[in-house]
Amino acid sequence: MKIIIIGATGTIGKHVVKALESGHEIIKVGSKSGDYQVDISDNRSIKVLLEKVGPFDALISTAGDAHFGPLKDMTDAEFRIGLDSKLMGQINLVLLGQHYINPKGSFTLTSGSLSEDPVVLGASVSAINGALDSFVRAAAIELGNGVRINAVGPDVVEESPGYFSYFPGHIPVTMNRVAQAYVKSVLGAQSGQTYMVL
Amino acid sequence: MKIIIIGATGTIGKHVVKALESGHEIIKVGSKSGDYQVDISDNRSIKVLLEKVGPFDALISTAGDAHFGPLKDMTDAEFRIGLDSKLMGQINLVLLGQHYINPKGSFTLTSGSLSEDPVVLGASVSAINGALDSFVRAAAIELGNGVRINAVGPDVVEESPGYFSYFPGHIPVTMNRVAQAYVKSVLGAQSGQTYMVL
Repeated sequence: MKIIIIGATGTIGKHVVKALESGHEIIKVGSKSGDYQVDISDNRSIKVLLEKVGPFDALISTAGDAHFGPLKDMTDAEFRIGLDSKLMGQINLVLLGQHYINPKGSFTLTSGSLSEDPVVLGASVSAINGALDSFVRAAAIELGNGVRINAVGPDVVEESPGYFSYFPGHIPVTMNRVAQAYVKSVLGAQSGQTYMVL
Repeated sequence: MKIIIIGATGTIGKHVVKALESGHEIIKVGSKSGDYQVDISDNRSIKVLLEKVGPFDALISTAGDAHFGPLKDMTDAEFRIGLDSKLMGQINLVLLGQHYINPKGSFTLTSGSLSEDPVVLGASVSAINGALDSFVRAAAIELGNGVRINAVGPDVVEESPGYFSYFPGHIPVTMNRVAQAYVKSVLGAQSGQTYMVL
């Protein structure tokens, strides 16, 4: 299987690469590193990537920024950081990628548990994750040729200790459990799901 | 109670006005009609409105556009119609309105059942509704002074027959049931909820 992994050198992405690299052709994509580079907030950059890589069987995105900060002072501009990057960046990977993906291929996006289980400072991230959960549910009923789409929604992960204090009482999830959720999406047969990793 | 209703002359808004107007001071706001006008996709327009209206006890939004069309041809620009209007328009009403609302006041936004129960052509609307559901859940834990926030998520409504054919098997919901969900949000005591009207 030819699998594109966007964010392949990131905290989550590198573990997804490890979990899938034996037995599959992995195309590692980063913002600055990897086999190819892309800026997912720029549609032209996504198109250039897809043209270079050509037809593929699976696209996994573990990329996307969003603003984390107090609701009290939150501005439209701060909120839109995540709309442009984590939300539309990932959605545009699907809107554009649907014209390059092979029949029975799959898209796997990254949401997060904040869509259902919010923390203080996370209102913008929650909204974006909720949008992604609902988007995959809806896109799943329109994608043709047996193409599937899911999201993975991790809680705070063990390799991001800088976030632990913002997630009181959350047990950081292991990188292996997170990576296996992407494996489940790519090698399984379900569509329209968000696999929460809690 | 001084209640601002954005979209007061729209399909849903006019029924919400009727359900709340006895016993409350209703400020009717529309894009072109009502006591005041606002373009919710323009932050400056929202600020002007809030300055004119002054402190209030409840803000209800039944406003916001979004693109309805096939995923196969959907563009970034089409998707962003809803991000700018139904999503950020309503979220900016909260981000800005939180500085004008009275203690123990409430915000009530309009989401929709497509966040959980998608139909063909609705991927963008689903995403936006999902974002709103998660946003109210998250914002509820940060708003101070006892201020609450909820969303109402109606299925296709009886007074929008133009949409019936896009919602096969859905039983259109009565305007009274929809209006009462807003009443429940404003006069009840819950926060962080989406009241689905199915």
